Amino acid sequence: MAEDWSAELRRAAAYVEAHAADFEQRWAQWLRIPSISADPAHRPDLERAADWLLEQFRGLGLTAEKIPTAGAPLVYAESPPVQGAPTALVYGHYDVQPAEPIQAWESPPFEPTRRNGAMYARGATDDKGQLLTHLWSTEAWLRAVGRLPVQLKFLIEGEEEIGSSHLEQFLRDRPQRAVCDCVVISDGAQFGPDQPAICYGLRGIAYYELRLKGPKRDLHSGSFGGTVTNPANALAQMLAGLVDERGRIQIPGFYDDVTPLSAEERERLASLPFDEEKFLADLGVSGATGEEGYTLLERRWARPTFDIHGLWSGYQGEGAKTVLPAEAGAKFSFRLVPYQDPAKITLGLRQRLQELCPPGIQMELLETHGTPAVLAPVESPYVQAAVRAIQQAFGRPPVFIREGGSIPIVAAFQQAFPIPVLLVGWGQDDDNTHAPNERLRLVDFHRGIQASIYLWAELALAFPRH
Amino acid sequence: MAEDWSAELRRAAAYVEAHAADFEQRWAQWLRIPSISADPAHRPDLERAADWLLEQFRGLGLTAEKIPTAGAPLVYAESPPVQGAPTALVYGHYDVQPAEPIQAWESPPFEPTRRNGAMYARGATDDKGQLLTHLWSTEAWLRAVGRLPVQLKFLIEGEEEIGSSHLEQFLRDRPQRAVCDCVVISDGAQFGPDQPAICYGLRGIAYYELRLKGPKRDLHSGSFGGTVTNPANALAQMLAGLVDERGRIQIPGFYDDVTPLSAEERERLASLPFDEEKFLADLGVSGATGEEGYTLLERRWARPTFDIHGLWSGYQGEGAKTVLPAEAGAKFSFRLVPYQDPAKITLGLRQRLQELCPPGIQMELLETHGTPAVLAPVESPYVQAAVRAIQQAFGRPPVFIREGGSIPIVAAFQQAFPIPVLLVGWGQDDDNTHAPNERLRLVDFHRGIQASIYLWAELALAFPRH
Repeated sequence: MAEDWSAELRRAAAYVEAHAADFEQRWAQWLRIPSISADPAHRPDLERAADWLLEQFRGLGLTAEKIPTAGAPLVYAESPPVQGAPTALVYGHYDVQPAEPIQAWESPPFEPTRRNGAMYARGATDDKGQLLTHLWSTEAWLRAVGRLPVQLKFLIEGEEEIGSSHLEQFLRDRPQRAVCDCVVISDGAQFGPDQPAICYGLRGIAYYELRLKGPKRDLHSGSFGGTVTNPANALAQMLAGLVDERGRIQIPGFYDDVTPLSAEERERLASLPFDEEKFLADLGVSGATGEEGYTLLERRWARPTFDIHGLWSGYQGEGAKTVLPAEAGAKFSFRLVPYQDPAKITLGLRQRLQELCPPGIQMELLETHGTPAVLAPVESPYVQAAVRAIQQAFGRPPVFIREGGSIPIVAAFQQAFPIPVLLVGWGQDDDNTHAPNERLRLVDFHRGIQASIYLWAELALAFPRH
Repeated sequence: MAEDWSAELRRAAAYVEAHAADFEQRWAQWLRIPSISADPAHRPDLERAADWLLEQFRGLGLTAEKIPTAGAPLVYAESPPVQGAPTALVYGHYDVQPAEPIQAWESPPFEPTRRNGAMYARGATDDKGQLLTHLWSTEAWLRAVGRLPVQLKFLIEGEEEIGSSHLEQFLRDRPQRAVCDCVVISDGAQFGPDQPAICYGLRGIAYYELRLKGPKRDLHSGSFGGTVTNPANALAQMLAGLVDERGRIQIPGFYDDVTPLSAEERERLASLPFDEEKFLADLGVSGATGEEGYTLLERRWARPTFDIHGLWSGYQGEGAKTVLPAEAGAKFSFRLVPYQDPAKITLGLRQRLQELCPPGIQMELLETHGTPAVLAPVESPYVQAAVRAIQQAFGRPPVFIREGGSIPIVAAFQQAFPIPVLLVGWGQDDDNTHAPNERLRLVDFHRGIQASIYLWAELALAFPRH
C-alpha cells in the first residue's frame, strides 16, 4: 500500500521556510572557496570544497566519504536503503569555471553577494547552488520528518569543468557503488523565468587545443614577411577551413552519424514559447549566423556546432609590434548530437587539419575531452514523477526541452547502467554560467529545494514495491 | 681643391682603436634604459634615453637640444658648417621594441651582456648600437683631428617603433631645421656576415588593429553555441578572407599601383649569393608559403605581404573553458611596395572587412600607422661615396639590396626634401631584431664605426665645392 506523504511534506516544507536564511548563508560559505578545476594552482581549494561538502553530509548522519582519484577527489554519501522504494542518485560537481575576465565582475567572483534578488558568485548556479537544493531537501526530510521516502546516494565530483575523466574511471571500475534506479541532476536552466523545464536531450562535446609552430623564433615582419609561413595567418586559415559559408562543418564524416530531426520533434520545438528577437536583443546582438536550414532552437539544442573558445598569438599589448610570431594557438570544440562519436570526430578533424596545414608549419592537436550526446524517453515514470514534483513546487508543469551543453558524466552514467537521468535545472539562461557575474535567483534556489522535497516523495509514490 | 684626408683618417682610426672598450661600455650604459615606446609605462625611460644622448652630443661640443613633442622628445644636434662640403644628416631612434616574451631571453633584455662576440640586449642593433657608430665616428674626428670634413646633423627620435608620427609632424612644420644634402641611416642589416650592403629600396607598411564584438557578455558555448555569431570564429574567417590560396591579397584595388618588377631587377636579385635552403633551415622551417610566381627574395623585398602580428580572444589559460567569447581582436599589417598608398589600402581594407563581417558582429578597425615604400637611385654620387667608405672599412665592396622592412621616416624625409637617403646597415639578419635575444656582433659594431669615419671624408671628397 502506497503511503500518503502529505503530512511529512508539510513538515519538510515548513523546515525549509524556517531555514531559508541559514541555507543561503551556508551556500555563500561554500561559494567563497575558489574551486577552479582548470587551474592546478587551485588544487588545495578543490580539497577544501570537497571537505566542506563532506562535513555537511556527515552532519546529517549520512554515510559519507571522500574518494581520492588521480585528480580532484569524489565525495560520496548515502542514506539507508528504504524497503520497497527506489534509490535515486544525485550527481553534481563542486568545481567551477575560471573567473576570467576578473575585471568584468561587478562584485568579486569569490565574494558571494546578494543583489537584485539573486546570489552572485562563480559557481552560484553551476553547480554549487543547484546541487545544494538536493542537499537542503534531504536535510529538511531528515530533520523535520526523521527519514527519507527513498534511498538517496550523492556522487559529487570536482572535475566536471575539465572533462570528468576520474569520475568516468570510477564508474567503469566500481559501478556497484553507484547502483541506483535513477540519476537526478540539477546543472541547467529552466526554459525561462517561472517556466520550469525537464531536459530530455543533451549535446555532447569534443574539445581540442591546436598549437602551431612556424619559425623557431619571433621574426621582424618587415625583414622576413613573405619568406616564411606565418603561424597566426596559418591558424586563421585552418580554423576558417573547418566550416563553410553555410555553417556546415568541413570535417570528413562529421555528419555521417547525425540522425535528421523528426517532424514531430521539430514541431514540439517550434511550439515552445520562444521569442527569437528578444533572445538576440538580450544578448546584445542585431543578428546571428549558424547552420543554414535550421531554426535557432534547433541549432541550439539539436544540431552540432563549431566554436572557438580561445585564440592567442604574437603581441597582444598596447600599440604596434611588427613581429612575425613563432607560434599561434587556439582552443575550440564541436558540440555533438546523438550518435556522433567524439573519437571518430577526432580522426576526421586530424585529417582535415593536416590537409589545411601549410608548408613551414608544425601542428600539434591535443584532444582535451570528448563526450557523446544523450537523449532520454519523456514517457518514463521517473520523468513523470519529476513532472509532478515540479508542478507542485512551481505551480505549473514543466515543458520538455533539450539543452545545448553537455554534462559529460550523463553519458558515462548511461554507459555504466542504462537508467533514466532526470535533468531538472533550476537556473535561468541569463544567469551568466561560465561568464562574469554568474548568479542564481533566490526564488529559483528556494523553489528548487521545494521541488526536490516533492521529488523524493513522488519517486516513492511512483514505485510502490510492496 | 680637394683635400687628401689620409693623415686625418689614420688619426681618427687610431682613436677608435684606443677607445673600443670605452665605446662598448657607453653603448651598454644606454642599452640599460628600457626605452620601449609602445608602452606608456615606459615614458620616463624614453626621457632618460633622450637625456643620455643629449649629454653625449654636448660632451663633444655639438650644439644639441631636446625638442619636446606631444609624444617622446626628439634629440637634435649639429656640428658647425664646413665651407664647400656637403651636410649629412644622421637619423636614428633611441626607442626600442617591447621585450616580450621575456622568458625567451637568455640574458635579461635590459642587462646588456657580451657573449659569443656580440652584445645582447633589446636595442643592441635596433637602433641604439647602429646609431652610436655615427656618434663614435664623430667623436673620433673631433677628438683626434679636431674637426669634421663635412657638417653633420643628428635628428634622433623616440617613436620609430610606433610610427614616427611626431617626427613626421616636425619635418612638415619645421623642415628648415633638417636641411641637408643627404641622410645617413644605419638601422638595417648587411647582406650576410662579411658581406656589407647598401639598401636602395624599402617596403612601406600599413598597420591595423581589428576588434570584433559579438554578444554583450561571454556565453556558455554549450547553452548558446549555434545561436549567435562567435567573434573568434568571425575573426578567423575575416582574416582568412584577406588572402587567397595563391598568396594574393584580397582587397579591392590592392595591386592597382604595384609596378611589375623589371627583368633587370629580377636578374640583379637572382644573382645575389643567396642560399634559400640554408635561409629556411636557419629559421627552423622545412618549407615556406608566399605569393605564387615570385622567388623568396622577391617576396621578401619587392612584393607586398599580409602578416598577422597578434591574435587574442576568450580563454588562453590552462585547461579547457567552454566559453563563447564576447570579443576577439587582431593586429596585422601589409608591407607595401613603391607607389602603393597606405590611405588607399585602408579604404579597400575597410570595404573588404565590411563584406566579410558576419551578422551579429560589430567591427572596429583602427589604423595604427602607414608609410609608403621607398626606392633610391644607385648611381648617385652619395651612394658611390658610401660604397667607397664601406669598401675601405670592410675590405670588400657592398652589394646592392632591398629591404623588406620599412623605416617610416625615410618616406617622410623624402617628402620633406627629395634628397638621397643612404641606408647603410651594420647588423645581420640573424641578430633577432624585434625578437628575444637581440644582439649586434662586436665586429660589425666596430667596422661600422670605421666605415662611418671614412664616409664623412668620402662625402667631402665627392663634393669639392670650391
